[in-house]
Amino acid sequence: MLRIGVIGYGYWGPNLVRNFSESLNATVTMVADLDPARLALVSRRFPTVRTTTSFAELIADPNVDAVAVATPVRTHFAIGMEVLRAGKHLWLEKPMTETADEALRLADEADRRKLVCYVDHTFVYTGAVRKIAQLMHAGELGKLYYYDSTRINLGLFQRDVNVIADLAVHDFAILDYLMREQPIAVSANGVNHFPGTPENLGYLTLFYGSGVLAHINVSWLSPVKVRQVLVSGSEKMIVYDDLLPSEKIKVYDSGVHFTEDPDTIRDLRVGYRTGDMWAPKLEDTEALSVAVEHFADCISRQQVPLTDARLGVRIIQLIEASNRSIRERGRSVTIGSEVVRS
Amino acid sequence: MLRIGVIGYGYWGPNLVRNFSESLNATVTMVADLDPARLALVSRRFPTVRTTTSFAELIADPNVDAVAVATPVRTHFAIGMEVLRAGKHLWLEKPMTETADEALRLADEADRRKLVCYVDHTFVYTGAVRKIAQLMHAGELGKLYYYDSTRINLGLFQRDVNVIADLAVHDFAILDYLMREQPIAVSANGVNHFPGTPENLGYLTLFYGSGVLAHINVSWLSPVKVRQVLVSGSEKMIVYDDLLPSEKIKVYDSGVHFTEDPDTIRDLRVGYRTGDMWAPKLEDTEALSVAVEHFADCISRQQVPLTDARLGVRIIQLIEASNRSIRERGRSVTIGSEVVRS
Amino acid sequence: MLRIGVIGYGYWGPNLVRNFSESLNATVTMVADLDPARLALVSRRFPTVRTTTSFAELIADPNVDAVAVATPVRTHFAIGMEVLRAGKHLWLEKPMTETADEALRLADEADRRKLVCYVDHTFVYTGAVRKIAQLMHAGELGKLYYYDSTRINLGLFQRDVNVIADLAVHDFAILDYLMREQPIAVSANGVNHFPGTPENLGYLTLFYGSGVLAHINVSWLSPVKVRQVLVSGSEKMIVYDDLLPSEKIKVYDSGVHFTEDPDTIRDLRVGYRTGDMWAPKLEDTEALSVAVEHFADCISRQQVPLTDARLGVRIIQLIEASNRSIRERGRSVTIGSEVVRS
Amino acid sequence: MLRIGVIGYGYWGPNLVRNFSESLNATVTMVADLDPARLALVSRRFPTVRTTTSFAELIADPNVDAVAVATPVRTHFAIGMEVLRAGKHLWLEKPMTETADEALRLADEADRRKLVCYVDHTFVYTGAVRKIAQLMHAGELGKLYYYDSTRINLGLFQRDVNVIADLAVHDFAILDYLMREQPIAVSANGVNHFPGTPENLGYLTLFYGSGVLAHINVSWLSPVKVRQVLVSGSEKMIVYDDLLPSEKIKVYDSGVHFTEDPDTIRDLRVGYRTGDMWAPKLEDTEALSVAVEHFADCISRQQVPLTDARLGVRIIQLIEASNRSIRERGRSVTIGSEVVRS
Repeated sequence: MLRIGVIGYGYWGPNLVRNFSESLNATVTMVADLDPARLALVSRRFPTVRTTTSFAELIADPNVDAVAVATPVRTHFAIGMEVLRAGKHLWLEKPMTETADEALRLADEADRRKLVCYVDHTFVYTGAVRKIAQLMHAGELGKLYYYDSTRINLGLFQRDVNVIADLAVHDFAILDYLMREQPIAVSANGVNHFPGTPENLGYLTLFYGSGVLAHINVSWLSPVKVRQVLVSGSEKMIVYDDLLPSEKIKVYDSGVHFTEDPDTIRDLRVGYRTGDMWAPKLEDTEALSVAVEHFADCISRQQVPLTDARLGVRIIQLIEASNRSIRERGRSVTIGSEVVRS
Repeated sequence: MLRIGVIGYGYWGPNLVRNFSESLNATVTMVADLDPARLALVSRRFPTVRTTTSFAELIADPNVDAVAVATPVRTHFAIGMEVLRAGKHLWLEKPMTETADEALRLADEADRRKLVCYVDHTFVYTGAVRKIAQLMHAGELGKLYYYDSTRINLGLFQRDVNVIADLAVHDFAILDYLMREQPIAVSANGVNHFPGTPENLGYLTLFYGSGVLAHINVSWLSPVKVRQVLVSGSEKMIVYDDLLPSEKIKVYDSGVHFTEDPDTIRDLRVGYRTGDMWAPKLEDTEALSVAVEHFADCISRQQVPLTDARLGVRIIQLIEASNRSIRERGRSVTIGSEVVRS
Repeated sequence: MLRIGVIGYGYWGPNLVRNFSESLNATVTMVADLDPARLALVSRRFPTVRTTTSFAELIADPNVDAVAVATPVRTHFAIGMEVLRAGKHLWLEKPMTETADEALRLADEADRRKLVCYVDHTFVYTGAVRKIAQLMHAGELGKLYYYDSTRINLGLFQRDVNVIADLAVHDFAILDYLMREQPIAVSANGVNHFPGTPENLGYLTLFYGSGVLAHINVSWLSPVKVRQVLVSGSEKMIVYDDLLPSEKIKVYDSGVHFTEDPDTIRDLRVGYRTGDMWAPKLEDTEALSVAVEHFADCISRQQVPLTDARLGVRIIQLIEASNRSIRERGRSVTIGSEVVRS
Repeated sequence: MLRIGVIGYGYWGPNLVRNFSESLNATVTMVADLDPARLALVSRRFPTVRTTTSFAELIADPNVDAVAVATPVRTHFAIGMEVLRAGKHLWLEKPMTETADEALRLADEADRRKLVCYVDHTFVYTGAVRKIAQLMHAGELGKLYYYDSTRINLGLFQRDVNVIADLAVHDFAILDYLMREQPIAVSANGVNHFPGTPENLGYLTLFYGSGVLAHINVSWLSPVKVRQVLVSGSEKMIVYDDLLPSEKIKVYDSGVHFTEDPDTIRDLRVGYRTGDMWAPKLEDTEALSVAVEHFADCISRQQVPLTDARLGVRIIQLIEASNRSIRERGRSVTIGSEVVRS
């Protein structure tokens, strides 16, 4: 039974405590937060869990085998390093750290100490993304053409990270899992509409050596909420709409026509589709619950998580390259190739 | 009664003939096409309209006051110039010409001869775009933040123009009509997945001096058809979905929250909207019919059309700048300021 | 080449003239309407078609082989009978007549004279309904459970027929085509919200000997337009949404659970679906054009149309039984079995 | 602080325990269930709550002021009566009892003892239904025409109640809250597709003295989940789609046209809407949480709940009348008027 300490009981922390509590392979022994009011909530909902305002105390506690960190990003590196140095396994919320350099140092430290360092890119554990991966890796899509994601919604502005580190990282993680190659460059544009705040709108194009293009449209300033990804290949095309209650994934036959015949053009202009569509049944276990089991399993079997520290590093590098490109109005920026999948 | 000759009876020509025929202010006297089979169709549907395989014969005919050109883009300049030199008014399908230089020469020729030169950017005449313009120009949206358009569909690949000249031009024309300023630079990425063909996928960001960003996502290789535009300001935000049979335009109150309170964050993350929504009634006259009346009216009253040759020039310049940026992987390209609204 | 005369150039007549004109197996020689303004429209669009305000003149014309009647329902019987007595084939708009007795007399007259009498229940010729029929008749749905249709929209009130004769007849015709049995009774409710007008709202339940139930919800007074049919069997269930531009037909695996386990109940309550979904490609030829070819074909090959006079009779009987049930507030009314499929 | 005992920890019980626990005006002191495994779940999540397999022990416990009953319907009467006789307030899940007679006896007993007897028709406490009530009671809809509800979904079959007692009761409760009058008769049809089980499909029409018709379509055997209600009046019409994440309520201007002009008919046939649409912001507090506060408030202030025992009785009477009508294939059954709103 893995004994978990959770640092940070703000927005995401309660989800961690709930999911670790419900696992048969883990138990939450302690929760730390600077705000006693938040800790009172813990005590009310989980009377047997101990609480503290000192994260050092939590890390040092002998009843804690692994620590999940759900604090603001700027604190991830310091807390994470302390956890590893205490010889404990580490679960870090995304994004992993503020800089790729910090991420790399955490990854190295975890390797040195043979500790599991998991970064919580939860989307990789959803039934939808696993189904897309299964179809892609089985070659069903044929030659891959592009990936196009729209993640936009209204209203919640964060102060410590921009919209790329908040939303585009989901696509970075999904792409890392789906693709057999790493992007070589990124061209990005973005804007902060409110002076002194991070970018709230971003448009990113990732270039791959194979010619595949990945485009990501992220925004905190959209009147409607959209979570839609297109993945398109020579044989099949996938539409993944994460907001649908059912049929999140639709698979279409690809179809391309080169023609100058006016009647064909009219039919194609007016029409919508020419083939069958198929919506496969998806696993609907909560992704965070799948991730919790995976984390416990990696610790007990001494394995590397699907979303390990090296993935975390690659994603921070992508964030950094994207931000550099935004400052240069779309000029494409080469992505460091020094880090490879462990 | 304006007497119209139509050159080109392929995909779009039949729509022109039908709409000019149904106007009380115009009549179609002649249709030219290189293919006798297409002309036979004309005779069957419109027995009183004369036909010819010679566009020169049509242009020279004394019963033709104005010529509508719906031929491949590469022929627009030559045919258009001949029409103007014959002293006749000109209706050109979009895009106006292959190069900005050609477009400029046509615009100058029309000005010199005091002839109407209309470029058929039909979207400007839809009830939806006119409603958005009305709301924007009345200041309802407050300070403008961004314009974000997605125009994607499957299957029809053109050989003579790329997806930007085919689809993004709709947004170029709409933006030209909506905005009180011209874009100063463009950063674009795109790809042709089939060697030897023009780009079938394009992602464009237009920069405006005021800080507004316009983003355009166009594709001929999408499994689903989307025609959606977001226009967002400090007071109101608009969602314009052109594929809906009703309620194409939805107007939302804007709402932005800067917070680190976990409960507010959770509500905003999970939730969708916090205000009322309003879907105004739209004029539903066919846009091409509105355009036909506008063309006839401009000729009879010697006025400049809303979508005149100068607009056509500005759009070709945007296409050229976008294509240059694509070749340089997103580097932003300044847009020529030598041409101003007439 | 079948020579057609069309009587009635109001709402539906123009569609008939256009479709017969575009057929390679038919030509429209004459159109009759009481209103010279409507005839002027015919002459403008189809200068070679003759016009008359006398339907008798049209019926007697030796250049007319078959007559399509698109006049108000109350005139169908008299005009139809005159057409048949003149020895000409008959195309009648739906509903066939005002009473089942009139319908029966037309059917008998057509049989006696060996003339084709087609009733225009166009839905039977759509790609969607033909696909459902193909799946059902191949046994794909398993044992049939029910048919449930919603046809509601706003605003157009007719004076000579009620909403059942206007909208529910579509379902009557579809059911007649899909089912291998005839309904034995009907229980119906309805209301006219505006005194002195026919019912504008109707709810019908048809009973079949096999235990299948068919329910039909029709309205002229709905804020939204809906055209949705569910067809449900022990193996597959179909959702047919006629307003979707693509994927009009979705096929689901059936799934039924008898349980009192609280966790299963919660999953089923909250969840949506448990199996795959499949949206087959549909034929998208205009249904009226398919019907026109079928009519011409039946005449040339002396065959009985899919939607013949006997079908027309059965449908009028259903309307009559439904209206009787409405007057008796839902009491079920047995449907006359005297007429069988020819 | 109201001290609550909950009997039954199956599907709905956990929701009751969670909502009473989170209220600042109530606390859960005890939970009873026959199944020790369910009680172990309670202890795990709420270690301070006492558990028992004896509901009599719970009812007798001096630390219990009010009892919430979430057991199978057939036990509601016996348990409910015992609760009242112990002098404790009663919260009953819907439907209240198996028979109207039982419901009436509970209502009388509660009155006699001046105890609060709440029946959990939760929909009445949703933001959507409260908004509709507010619009209706303010006269915004004009003269009311009809109410039309569709509540269909797949897969969960109950053994002790039919689909009317499971799903149509939601509409019975909503109608009771919205309407200023009680229905006078019901015509219903339904079927059980699986021998020996209760009806899984039901179509109900309620008649009101004012001429208003309410239609309810309920099913456990639909391939798609639908929760849609139309409420239509002479001035406004409402569409209430409970499955939408936002904009659950849309308000349309009513519009009715009596015409025989073919062009108007064509426009109306093809078109969708002619006026503006408005989607008001809704309260999004969880309905059960609103109900819990209302229950605590009624007890502390000795008031009658919005969904009291008399409402429960009226609803059971409607179920009984509907079931009788189903057995008689739609014959309309008069609803007992002996019970009036308290």
